[in-house]
Amino acid sequence: MTCDYIKLANSGVQQLKPYEPGKPIAELERELGVTDIVKLASNENPLGPSHKALHALRHLDDLHLYPDGAGFSLKAALSETLGVASNQLTLGNGSNDILELIARAYLQPGDEAIFSEYAFAIYPLVTLGCSAKPVQVCSNLYGHDLAAMADAVTERTRVMFVANPNNPTGTWFNAHALDEFLSRIPERVIVVLDEAYFEYVEESHYPNGIDRLQKYPNLVVTRTFSKIHGLAGLRVGYGVSNPQIADVLNRIRQPFNVNTPAMVAAQAALSDEDHLENSRSENTSGLVQIAEGLLTLNLEQIPSVANFIAFDCGREAMPIYQGLLKQGVIVRPLSGYGMPNHLRVTVGTSRENERFLDALKHVLKEMANE
Amino acid sequence: MTCDYIKLANSGVQQLKPYEPGKPIAELERELGVTDIVKLASNENPLGPSHKALHALRHLDDLHLYPDGAGFSLKAALSETLGVASNQLTLGNGSNDILELIARAYLQPGDEAIFSEYAFAIYPLVTLGCSAKPVQVCSNLYGHDLAAMADAVTERTRVMFVANPNNPTGTWFNAHALDEFLSRIPERVIVVLDEAYFEYVEESHYPNGIDRLQKYPNLVVTRTFSKIHGLAGLRVGYGVSNPQIADVLNRIRQPFNVNTPAMVAAQAALSDEDHLENSRSENTSGLVQIAEGLLTLNLEQIPSVANFIAFDCGREAMPIYQGLLKQGVIVRPLSGYGMPNHLRVTVGTSRENERFLDALKHVLKEMANE
Repeated sequence: MTCDYIKLANSGVQQLKPYEPGKPIAELERELGVTDIVKLASNENPLGPSHKALHALRHLDDLHLYPDGAGFSLKAALSETLGVASNQLTLGNGSNDILELIARAYLQPGDEAIFSEYAFAIYPLVTLGCSAKPVQVCSNLYGHDLAAMADAVTERTRVMFVANPNNPTGTWFNAHALDEFLSRIPERVIVVLDEAYFEYVEESHYPNGIDRLQKYPNLVVTRTFSKIHGLAGLRVGYGVSNPQIADVLNRIRQPFNVNTPAMVAAQAALSDEDHLENSRSENTSGLVQIAEGLLTLNLEQIPSVANFIAFDCGREAMPIYQGLLKQGVIVRPLSGYGMPNHLRVTVGTSRENERFLDALKHVLKEMANE
Repeated sequence: MTCDYIKLANSGVQQLKPYEPGKPIAELERELGVTDIVKLASNENPLGPSHKALHALRHLDDLHLYPDGAGFSLKAALSETLGVASNQLTLGNGSNDILELIARAYLQPGDEAIFSEYAFAIYPLVTLGCSAKPVQVCSNLYGHDLAAMADAVTERTRVMFVANPNNPTGTWFNAHALDEFLSRIPERVIVVLDEAYFEYVEESHYPNGIDRLQKYPNLVVTRTFSKIHGLAGLRVGYGVSNPQIADVLNRIRQPFNVNTPAMVAAQAALSDEDHLENSRSENTSGLVQIAEGLLTLNLEQIPSVANFIAFDCGREAMPIYQGLLKQGVIVRPLSGYGMPNHLRVTVGTSRENERFLDALKHVLKEMANE
């Protein structure tokens, strides 16, 4: 072999380090032989999938036939629920797919994409995947500094990613801040508003991005069925935008990017109000439970409106992460985000939250005794 | 709105016309009110999914958890079955995903990708998606002219797509032709050997691409579970290559590109020898049945080793396609492939093939009487 196939790849791709997902339960079982595992690492819904979705999946046949590439039925349901036209929608293999489609449609080598420090790891990855330049703007108290982000726009800026609330920090910005920001961004720059955790937020001044689409033609709102709807294992999300941007994204997406079970389950989950309500209220009380627990342990935390909390271990977090693994509790280290002292824990059921807090207390105690 | 968001997109993306899938059954029902429909339009397995796969899907829970992004279990099974190392594998959301990943990893604006006339429509689409230049080489009797393809390599060529057998024509090339071709291609050019229909071919000199990986480090073999395994609705395929190329593709793929039901079903289908054997023998007799039927109708056909036959209507095919739709039979027009007089029919069950031949006879007779 005379060729180096890594050096042969496009320049941005060579710099890519793959996304590190939360450790799967089966992997922890294989590696440490631990059983009775609680996974609070990937912001999944601890109540499980919508029952309506599970029921719909029981009646699936014809899996030998290709999915409906046009997503007719799911788009009709989304259109009805969201009050947008069908031609404003793009279905994705998770909202990750939509983020990537936007990058691939609008970023070329030399272009710039702006996002915040401590924002979702996928933003720089999809940017580098197009050999474009990731531009990271310093955060403000772990949240987006929207004014600084607007200031960072240059002639080469073509895409901006903003998340509300933000993952992995759980911070959010209000309607006024969003509107001020949007009004400052030139129309030629695509603004991606990532609302993966939209349904969890109960703050009264929290803005709905979809209400801004009419005014801002450069806005794309992304949402997902992986979070509150409990369908992370099926991969389905969507983008809402002006029809021209949706047209572009639909040209570039794979013809069958979302599979049949994903579309069927998503459509059923969309109308499952009970599951949504239960998930939201369980999360709200879980946020309080974990926040209070961390307070008792004297650990500083970032106030969160989503379904997870990032907290400061006051020291390198990795050994604490490892200690929790041995206790069968998987959380998420944030060193990849430049937060080496923080861990992120997903809000679980009340029992799971207790299990996490107990395990954390145990690990911290052990370390204090070392 | 002062901006045109189509013109703002990358140059190749602007030229993209979305892939036109086979008409879904539900769409035909909606549009023409036809029922009792036979779909022979997308080269799906008429026997349906592997029963082992369906059984495995019945025991799925935890759909609220993200899939295993590393695909540990399915990769282990593939590694065992194919006799390759796990680090040579890339899982994809269908083999379409692998084709696109290769384009995205190795093509930039200005680069060239070579493929044959009358080859799979996705090759130019993934090339344009990267704003690279699609280079189409004239076919030889509807099959690949491998010598001409090798001659077409320039300094700017970075990827070549070859399909064996080819879709939509069903042509194939033998081991000797493949080896001669591969020996002529510089190592810096990635050769994608698309073997989506591999399992159907019964010709004795038909080559297995995977046996060539050791000798040709620039070779990527792609296969799918959408065809003989009957899992088109689930979207799962894979690439096999040298570990460096697999490393690159795994960096650029979405962290959860294949969903949980797809991986579970694929793994079960892989060991379902009975389903594979039945599907293959049903197809072999179906190919004969359709070939003889077309012969009786005096329609010229392209000899096929796959699970479909393209035939020449001797006139513009679109009205015949429309006539068949009214009879409840969906086949595939090939005008998008530059074959306006051809239709492609998938081999169905013996009853479905008969239904197609009867409907075709009826439509041709009606037209003769007009």
